[in-house]
Amino acid sequence: MSDIAARLAHIVGEHHLVTGDAIPDDYAHDEELTLAPVKPAYVAKPASAEEVAALLVAAGEHGIPVTARGSGSGLSGAARPQPGGLLISFERMNAVLEVDTTNQVAVVQPGVTLTELDAATDPHGLRYMVHPGELSSSVGGNVGTNAGGMQAVKYGVARHNILGLQAVLPTGEIIRTGGRIAKVSTGYDLTQLIVGSEGTLALATEVIVKLYPRLEHSATVLAPFADFDQVMTAVPAVLAQGLSPYILEYVDNMTMAAIVYTQHLELGIPEQVRDSCQAYLVVALENRNEGRLDEDVEQVAELLAELGAVDCYVLEGGAARKLIEAREKAFWTAKAIGADDIVDTVVPRAAMPQFLAAVREMATSAGGGVAGCGHAGDGNVHLAVLCKDPVARKKLMTDIFALAMELGGAISGEHGLGRAKAAYFAELEDPAKVALLRRIKESFDPAGILNPGVVFGEG
Amino acid sequence: MSDIAARLAHIVGEHHLVTGDAIPDDYAHDEELTLAPVKPAYVAKPASAEEVAALLVAAGEHGIPVTARGSGSGLSGAARPQPGGLLISFERMNAVLEVDTTNQVAVVQPGVTLTELDAATDPHGLRYMVHPGELSSSVGGNVGTNAGGMQAVKYGVARHNILGLQAVLPTGEIIRTGGRIAKVSTGYDLTQLIVGSEGTLALATEVIVKLYPRLEHSATVLAPFADFDQVMTAVPAVLAQGLSPYILEYVDNMTMAAIVYTQHLELGIPEQVRDSCQAYLVVALENRNEGRLDEDVEQVAELLAELGAVDCYVLEGGAARKLIEAREKAFWTAKAIGADDIVDTVVPRAAMPQFLAAVREMATSAGGGVAGCGHAGDGNVHLAVLCKDPVARKKLMTDIFALAMELGGAISGEHGLGRAKAAYFAELEDPAKVALLRRIKESFDPAGILNPGVVFGEG
Repeated sequence: MSDIAARLAHIVGEHHLVTGDAIPDDYAHDEELTLAPVKPAYVAKPASAEEVAALLVAAGEHGIPVTARGSGSGLSGAARPQPGGLLISFERMNAVLEVDTTNQVAVVQPGVTLTELDAATDPHGLRYMVHPGELSSSVGGNVGTNAGGMQAVKYGVARHNILGLQAVLPTGEIIRTGGRIAKVSTGYDLTQLIVGSEGTLALATEVIVKLYPRLEHSATVLAPFADFDQVMTAVPAVLAQGLSPYILEYVDNMTMAAIVYTQHLELGIPEQVRDSCQAYLVVALENRNEGRLDEDVEQVAELLAELGAVDCYVLEGGAARKLIEAREKAFWTAKAIGADDIVDTVVPRAAMPQFLAAVREMATSAGGGVAGCGHAGDGNVHLAVLCKDPVARKKLMTDIFALAMELGGAISGEHGLGRAKAAYFAELEDPAKVALLRRIKESFDPAGILNPGVVFGEG
Repeated sequence: MSDIAARLAHIVGEHHLVTGDAIPDDYAHDEELTLAPVKPAYVAKPASAEEVAALLVAAGEHGIPVTARGSGSGLSGAARPQPGGLLISFERMNAVLEVDTTNQVAVVQPGVTLTELDAATDPHGLRYMVHPGELSSSVGGNVGTNAGGMQAVKYGVARHNILGLQAVLPTGEIIRTGGRIAKVSTGYDLTQLIVGSEGTLALATEVIVKLYPRLEHSATVLAPFADFDQVMTAVPAVLAQGLSPYILEYVDNMTMAAIVYTQHLELGIPEQVRDSCQAYLVVALENRNEGRLDEDVEQVAELLAELGAVDCYVLEGGAARKLIEAREKAFWTAKAIGADDIVDTVVPRAAMPQFLAAVREMATSAGGGVAGCGHAGDGNVHLAVLCKDPVARKKLMTDIFALAMELGGAISGEHGLGRAKAAYFAELEDPAKVALLRRIKESFDPAGILNPGVVFGEG
């Protein structure tokens, strides 16, 4: 065993360090589609913030790049390790430390999955409302990517639901930020800076998440539209009513066909409606009162009919759950139909029709295609990009991101830049802003050990 | 005219630079209670981001400290200039540039006051929901302090409602952050870093704020409680119902007496109830449907009765508005009754009873007293501190802040540290964290020209 390996093993215990060929393939990648897997030199599984701090100090002294890993469900490659690097896997730090019902927060370790968190809070009638598609994702991963998901239209993304952190700086100092408090104006907001920093600034070792009371009654309305633009026009109209849908998604017809087919869904939509419609709107409502929910559903259905919906289906519990779950699995569907890359750009909601029309044309010109769905209420567009030629694809992706930015949007709404989208960011973003981000990075990580290549690219 | 003054006048135009004795007293202070006013050497009133950039470059070259000022309604002294310094007043940059109803945002210049913003958005049925007590405050000031206010319990504080910025770095670069989008995971969140940085990192020259549909119907419930702890116990119980009050405040009996007296309020509460109660809970509800509102009001009233309220008054429109306005003016009441300093600490909601009981004892031991009210739903406690002796007062304030931090809270919930509370922060905060904040400050402002003394203190 090398000196370094011995030092790392001394920190986490011999059973919790894996090196070289003994490292399972799973640790070499996350769910990003385009990057080649890379095995790190070391996988360490710490049990405490102190062990994480000792690992970072050791890595700093030996100049070893460090990548953090939760469940490995990321879609941008932020959890793909560096050659010769140290992967810190948070799988052993997976305790729900407390469900605090008075302050309506949970205090958890970063390796806790969303499924485990829900199981711990549900008996208290409370829930963490950030639900990215993959419920096996970890809270630490949510911190890293600033995870979103379908419920963001009502409850916000991870940064709105993460109130405080214990975090280890690359220099080995353990700090606490925020707390069991919803507001604070006391120095710069380190919580918000670390959330979404994709493991490049500090590693979260404890997370305080906001919980909401679960509303007992919910219903899902599915509305097919003949014309794509009508769907987009319906979105602000629904939001302007003050109905507060907790899900407001669009699904284009190709994606709907794929998820119905791969997930064996039976939605009860007649074939002639399916064939004549370009896209669907999914509106989910919730209420603590069943009567009010029924009234709201009726109001939404009427509104959507006025806005040109071909029909309006109120899905019963089972069918609704299946549709939502199938929609959550859209990434897997994209993967199954052979997507060559994925996009999760965000644009101002009003710019979605223009953006999507232009993107479809770009893809066709590039000899490829796009299909997708997205968080319509948030302007967050998920596209499966089909374009085999790597040169044409790179240009297509660049053009898509450039257009999103021109329209006032950004490259990623919730997946993060990771390692896969970082080069586009370096190419397209204002250099003054990138230089500022680099200086911020240096203020946390002077030796540059935390996830080099992520956010800023390799350059 | 000195060379520097000539350069500054050349940037903003001669009419928009005031120097020396010609500077009105108003520019020498904000509304903080303890600091001596200081006139700056120059007051410049730029009309554009480019002028702000040129001012910062000039100040950098001449080593002149720069303080930004909106309406001067801050309560922590972040807008009090430095001797010999440059005060940049945003009073001419006061345009509402756009009310974008589809994306539900407004784009405004930093000098716009909340009253002006409401006037611009109200015709569209939309509203910026951050309402700190002082509606003459500017949006730029809201950015600086991460302003809160009573509606934060439902709508969040400034950081949850500011989606994007145009900002000028101390080095003169003009950047854009965020956008007309609710979510983004594309590099570190500069918007959130600048919000709450009290003019020490960058100056906002354009602000994109989130708007919500206004709900037509609202009602306010006022409940006196015999026992202070009962009020605090009622808070989480109300929130757990999922009723989403947009205001959830407590007012102690001394503060209620003072605001009733100074604001000439008639609340219709019998004298024997007033005399027997220690504190009041104010719960405001809103709904887009009048019938639902009535039901909710009834439910809250029943719940508060169960929780020990002596009585429950549903205030009619005029009386409710007056009470809310009077509560918003609590700072002026504190000033009128001769408060020697004010506190706006935040603690976990569940810790409020323990915190307030301890603080009352501390104040008595110090030969002084405290009275207050606060955003009970947020754990944000506003106290008027009465303690004439400056040495005893400083110790009392330090003890109050230390206790808040020990309980998992922070020095300021919404006023900011400014110049007045910075020394307490330097004394009480984890040195590793303060050192990190300083490095972040340097990554923005290597020459240290932006608001020296604020956040970090003079040391």
